This record gives sequence, structure tokens and C-alpha cells, in this order.
Amino acid sequence: MRNIGMLLSYDGTAYSGYQTQPGRDTIQGRIEEAIHMLTKEHAAVTASGRTDAGVHALGQVVNFATESSIPIERWCPAMNSRLPDDIVIRDAWEAPESFHARFSAKRKTYRYSILAERTRDVFRRNVEFHHPAPLDIEAMRQALQHFVGEHDFTSVASPKSPKLTNVRTIYEARLEHEPNANHEPGRGRIHVFVTGNGFLYNMVRIIAGTLIWVGEGKFSPDDIVPILAAKNRESAGPTAVPHGLTLWSVEYDGEDRMDQAVPVLAEGKKDLA
Amino acid sequence: MRNIGMLLSYDGTAYSGYQTQPGRDTIQGRIEEAIHMLTKEHAAVTASGRTDAGVHALGQVVNFATESSIPIERWCPAMNSRLPDDIVIRDAWEAPESFHARFSAKRKTYRYSILAERTRDVFRRNVEFHHPAPLDIEAMRQALQHFVGEHDFTSVASPKSPKLTNVRTIYEARLEHEPNANHEPGRGRIHVFVTGNGFLYNMVRIIAGTLIWVGEGKFSPDDIVPILAAKNRESAGPTAVPHGLTLWSVEYDGEDRMDQAVPVLAEGKKDLA
Repeated sequence: MRNIGMLLSYDGTAYSGYQTQPGRDTIQGRIEEAIHMLTKEHAAVTASGRTDAGVHALGQVVNFATESSIPIERWCPAMNSRLPDDIVIRDAWEAPESFHARFSAKRKTYRYSILAERTRDVFRRNVEFHHPAPLDIEAMRQALQHFVGEHDFTSVASPKSPKLTNVRTIYEARLEHEPNANHEPGRGRIHVFVTGNGFLYNMVRIIAGTLIWVGEGKFSPDDIVPILAAKNRESAGPTAVPHGLTLWSVEYDGEDRMDQAVPVLAEGKKDLA
Repeated sequence: MRNIGMLLSYDGTAYSGYQTQPGRDTIQGRIEEAIHMLTKEHAAVTASGRTDAGVHALGQVVNFATESSIPIERWCPAMNSRLPDDIVIRDAWEAPESFHARFSAKRKTYRYSILAERTRDVFRRNVEFHHPAPLDIEAMRQALQHFVGEHDFTSVASPKSPKLTNVRTIYEARLEHEPNANHEPGRGRIHVFVTGNGFLYNMVRIIAGTLIWVGEGKFSPDDIVPILAAKNRESAGPTAVPHGLTLWSVEYDGEDRMDQAVPVLAEGKKDLA
């Protein structure tokens, strides 16, 4: 039995999220369907984590077991010709038997993107949250640093998050700002990158919603400290809309096999971990 | 009677082109519908030029006459709340009576975008042509310069182009190359920008298709000279797919009124003329 790993990107706009649900069009459903077309097998594909409806992925990682003898270098093109054009397999490799896309993951990075311009950008409307008013970007940058470290993240998790513990570690977080052409203060595009060992349900979207409230002056940057200490979802800001969120990359130990040069797509290329 | 000018962007993916056609969903149709919702008037909106199905615009310009007394600063938000999210009005201004979006236009710039990577980019799949093999980008750059100047462009126009003369002037043309993360030769993203006083039907798409043949080694850069001299559509390369094409900007003389700072969106901000 082979254990195949795949790196993929998807535009989540048209899907009911990553995970298979009866009667719904999902990323996992489309991938398993493509594998079935290719091998006649009913593979169960494991991802590094689910993504919600409307959420995207630049570097999602999955693995699955197969008896197929298709050479590994044929997987990418063979899959891509059987997938819709909003899902693409960027790499495939023979993984060791022990490799598990979820349990082997060491670090995950998400990006949340905000456009603080008067009018939306029609070409990115599905991958960023449009905030028509200006934002205090420096305050957002300061606030973001308070999330870094090991914390109980209950205040920024959906109460529906069914975890035994809400303690997680954010290894790093940064805010990138692309000013607009006129360098107007508080305007332009804002990307929030957060890297951690794991994320609770809605955690990055609630962090983003809380940062937006900081940017609007409803919270000060230092309010993040008592917000986290409260361990109460009511203390934080709103859950930002899903379509601004992208699962950016997933990192594994070398021997778990992500040893190939990762092809790089689209924007933010320098940021792909 | 007021003459209102508007600057707009649209993602043309979902539309049967710019121009109104019975029973089809078009950009013009949507704009006239929004004006009707706003003013109850049946305005006839004039654009700088039509765009085909699947073609996009970053900086299309239109004008229309209205008896409405809605203040000019209310036009953008009022229109945008009545337009689908793939069409956006970025600016509106009171134009002089003599201003005509098509006849007053002095220069138009188009961009054609090509991704020369093994796998497509799901986030830009509707705005660039995916060419899986590498391209000789330097040869394409050289070939492009042969199109600059005053020429009879019959060889790179659809035979359906119903013009009295096929002589046009390309003022400038340039190729921008974004290498991929590994700086692989012939890989990455290619943007071809062409600025001229007017364009024949399919002209930019045929120039792009001809450049792609240069990039594939089917033509040499200097072959462009006899191709243009032939004045025969058969001599040039194929018509590149519409979705790689974007109407980038339209320029007018100052007194024709484009005197406001043009808000800038998305990628290529430095290039917006």
C-alpha cells in the first residue's frame, strides 16, 4: 500500500468547505472523486485540517493510501485534468507509511486579508474582506503581537470548538501592509499572517475580527491582554467573514517528507513558508 | 442635462461581454439597470470601447446623460450598492458636455497575462492564460517591440473587424516578467502591456497569441516584420483566449476631464497610466 502526499491550492468560493458532507459540493469530495476516476478506488483523503465554506487554501496538504501503480510523476497532471479549475494539485510525493497530513503537521500558517479602500477590488473580492473606512494599521500591528506565545485562546474560539484544551502556541504573527498609490493613511491592503501549532475553530477569523475592531478604535492594542485573560468569547471582537481567510502553508519535519522544492503561486510568494 | 463620467472595474468572467445584447447578461446592461434603479431613467451608457465575453477591465470609462439631481459624490456608493460584486464604480465626475467616453479617448492600454507554470493558479485562473510549458521570454520581449509604431495591423485583426482602415499607432508596449520563486528560466508570470490610439477587433489577443508562438520558438522575434507586412490574418499566430485580457486604462486630455486622482486597485498599481 502506497501512502501518497499531495500539496494543493483551492479557491473555496464555490464549495461547502473542505470536508465531505452528504449532498454538498466539497473540496474533499472533488479530490476523492478524481482519485476514483483515476484508480477506481474509494480513497479516504486526510487533510492537515478542514477549512470552512468560503475559506481558501494556497498550501493545503493531504495524504491517502492507494494500491494504484501510477508513477508518482503522473499524479499531478492526471489529477488536475480530473479536477475543476478552482482546485489544483501542485505536488505529489511518496510519503513514508507514518506520514499523516494532520497528526504529522508541526506548524500551520493562515493569512487573513483586508482591503481598506472606498471601493472593492473586483479581482480579489472573493479572497479579501472589504472594509470601506480607513483602519489604524499600526495599532492593529501592535495588537497582533499580543497573540503570540502560548495562551488559552478560549476568548478567540467559537464556543462550538470541541477541544479538550484551548491552549495553543502562536509562534509568529505579522501584519503586511501594501499602501495604495496615493499612500493615504489607513488605506491599502492588509495581510495578517499567523503561524501556530494548531488553531481552534474560527480562531483566526476571530483574531482578524478583533484586530479590525482595534483598527476602528473600538479596542486599544493593549486590550488584547485582558481579552485573552477573560477566556470568554464575549470579550473579543466579531468573527470576520470566511472569504478573507486562506490556509497559507503547513509545515512538517523533514523526514515526514516535504523535502521537495515547493512550487510557488500567486501573490505573497516570498511568504510561503 | 448633466453628462456624468464614471471609471469602473469589472471581472468579465460571468458576462457576455460589455455591450447590451437581448437576453444576455452584460456589463452595460447591469450598469443601465443600476442607473434605472437609482433615477428611473433609461440611460444609454457609452463606453470607451466594448470588451468581449470573458475580458476584464481595471479602468473602463463610460459616460451618460441624466436629468437626475443626485449629488456627484453620491454616485459611486449609490451605484455600487445596486451593482453585483464583480462590477464596481471607482469614480464618478461631472464631465463637460463635449466629453464622449469613446470619441474623446486619446490612448488606451490593454494588458494580456500569461502564467508559464506547470500548474494553474486557482486565484487568478480567470484573469490569465495558463501555459504549462516554459516560454522564451526574452524573444517575446524583442518581438513585442516590432509592433510599436504606426502600422497596418490587418495581420493581427479579426477578418470580421469592420474598419475603414486598419492603420493604427501603438505608442508603447512592454513585457513585465515576474519570475517564480526558484527563478526557473522561462517560468513565472508574463504581463504584456500595449498602449495605442485604437485597437482593431481581437488585435491584442492576436498579438498575444503571436507572442506565445514566439515564446514557443515557432516564430523568431524578427518574423513579426514580415507578418505585419503580409497584411493577412493567416500570417500571424492564434487568437489568445479572452480571459487573459484586461482593458487596463483609458486616457483623455485634461480638459476632457480625467482630472481627479485615479484610485488604484489591485495588482500592477504602478502601471495604471
